[in-house]
Amino acid sequence: MTKPKYLTGDNAAINEFIDRFDVFLLDCDGVIWSGDHVFEGVPETLEYLRSRGKKVVFVTNNSTKSREEYLKKFTGLGIPSDVEEIFGSAYSSAIYISRILQLPAPKNKVFVIGEAGIEHELRSEKVPFIGGTDPAFRRDITPEDWKGIADGSLLDPDVGVVLAGLDFHINYLKLSHALQYLRRGAVFLATNTDSTFPANHSFFPGAGSIGTPLAYMTGAQPLALGKPSQAMMDAVEGKFRLDRARTCMVGDRLNTDIKFGVEGRLGGTLAVLTGVARQADWEADDAVAVPAFYVDRLSDLGAAAAAVAP
Amino acid sequence: MTKPKYLTGDNAAINEFIDRFDVFLLDCDGVIWSGDHVFEGVPETLEYLRSRGKKVVFVTNNSTKSREEYLKKFTGLGIPSDVEEIFGSAYSSAIYISRILQLPAPKNKVFVIGEAGIEHELRSEKVPFIGGTDPAFRRDITPEDWKGIADGSLLDPDVGVVLAGLDFHINYLKLSHALQYLRRGAVFLATNTDSTFPANHSFFPGAGSIGTPLAYMTGAQPLALGKPSQAMMDAVEGKFRLDRARTCMVGDRLNTDIKFGVEGRLGGTLAVLTGVARQADWEADDAVAVPAFYVDRLSDLGAAAAAVAP
Repeated sequence: MTKPKYLTGDNAAINEFIDRFDVFLLDCDGVIWSGDHVFEGVPETLEYLRSRGKKVVFVTNNSTKSREEYLKKFTGLGIPSDVEEIFGSAYSSAIYISRILQLPAPKNKVFVIGEAGIEHELRSEKVPFIGGTDPAFRRDITPEDWKGIADGSLLDPDVGVVLAGLDFHINYLKLSHALQYLRRGAVFLATNTDSTFPANHSFFPGAGSIGTPLAYMTGAQPLALGKPSQAMMDAVEGKFRLDRARTCMVGDRLNTDIKFGVEGRLGGTLAVLTGVARQADWEADDAVAVPAFYVDRLSDLGAAAAAVAP
Repeated sequence: MTKPKYLTGDNAAINEFIDRFDVFLLDCDGVIWSGDHVFEGVPETLEYLRSRGKKVVFVTNNSTKSREEYLKKFTGLGIPSDVEEIFGSAYSSAIYISRILQLPAPKNKVFVIGEAGIEHELRSEKVPFIGGTDPAFRRDITPEDWKGIADGSLLDPDVGVVLAGLDFHINYLKLSHALQYLRRGAVFLATNTDSTFPANHSFFPGAGSIGTPLAYMTGAQPLALGKPSQAMMDAVEGKFRLDRARTCMVGDRLNTDIKFGVEGRLGGTLAVLTGVARQADWEADDAVAVPAFYVDRLSDLGAAAAAVAP
């Protein structure tokens, strides 16, 4: 295993590193911000990369927000960006369904377990769906449901996909519907498989946990459309027509971000120490993935700006 | 692997079989009844076994009903029985917590994911609990919850156990609370690990599926108090002071009932073909468990009644 190269403070190495790539795929939480706190110097660093002709793409597993909602967050936090630079797992799922899966109508409807972000992205790709935030599914199961779900009379015969994402309104009724659709042959997809969702400096149930009952009941694992799944890399590559050899994945988690880049055979991976991973994690014998480079914080890349200024 | 002995129609073999045991542990769904339909001849067969001095105990994984509620179901279906003959996974969980786990007060409170059956049994064993059917937990998560769950201000410091059972009102709020208690060291128990719950001639999410998000998030498996967990066998043995060599487990599922009896080193196991298992299942090379005996239906044991009548 090659030892990752430490770049912080070494302007020559940083310049050489930046020159190697045309595209930087950036994770958000733990890299750009923590919750609603933007790390110091990050907006300037992003501008610096752009000024050197680099494309930056924000690749996030959070499925609860659409790209438009993410753009609002970026703008609100003072980070200049464009909706076309944002690639979330909800969007990844939508384009996988519409452009790769391409189920023939009418049996191409999606039963959604998740929030509005997924719905927005499905709509943007003109994918028909039910479930999601529909109040008809945000309630207790009734005797009529037990009967109608079991005999199929309450099921939509056009559902061909079950898509499970983070759903703050998960309930027995939705799980029961999803199980029946899967038993009837629906394709099983997940926006991502993160077990937990970081919030308020703690951990809450993540999208991956919301889908585990369905996997346990059916004995089948979903195809995940978020990091580290290469289905997401394929979608990113298809959209941005990037040269993988000249692309670098930047992130704070070995098991999602760095693994995503390594398995995608990108030209490079850069770990930052402002999130989950610590140096000891990739030095461990059973490290899930090892980055090619690392810095203390993303803004360390911007420190080279002064050094190369004419 | 010994071939199971087929008893149906062989009165001499049935008599010999019955003579070998003092206690019959019986699964309910698929053995006694299917849903609300009692299989023909079963009440008479149970009476016949009792008339020969046998003790019958109904051992069920359904945690949504207390023993009292089960007794009502038996009575309503015309099956004479006594509350002391009923042993469900909710009761099994309660006596495990009160008599085996015995956490010292005050940190002995249970956070319940489940229905009223679990609460009744915990109360009967004087085990303090929160959660369960409390309306305070049957609602959406709020911004105050995110904050208070993360910083602990909304958590009960006395919770030392998380008990996950079948909960028709599972939601994000309960899963978030349970996750935090487990992260703070609570013991992780499950009434049972059945992935599905049979109802209306179909399948719905089972107790095991309700608990999988917690297992996925924490990386820890719960100790299960239902079949085939031997923690339940220990509880049954402790209560009825039975001689395992003279006890037979009767059931329709190899992976719960028959496995429960085989791993508990009971004197015998009897499979019935009125539920899930078919002969091909135990004849398969990868059979999860093989019964010692089998009959087409439980009432085939009663057919010996006439033959032995004086």
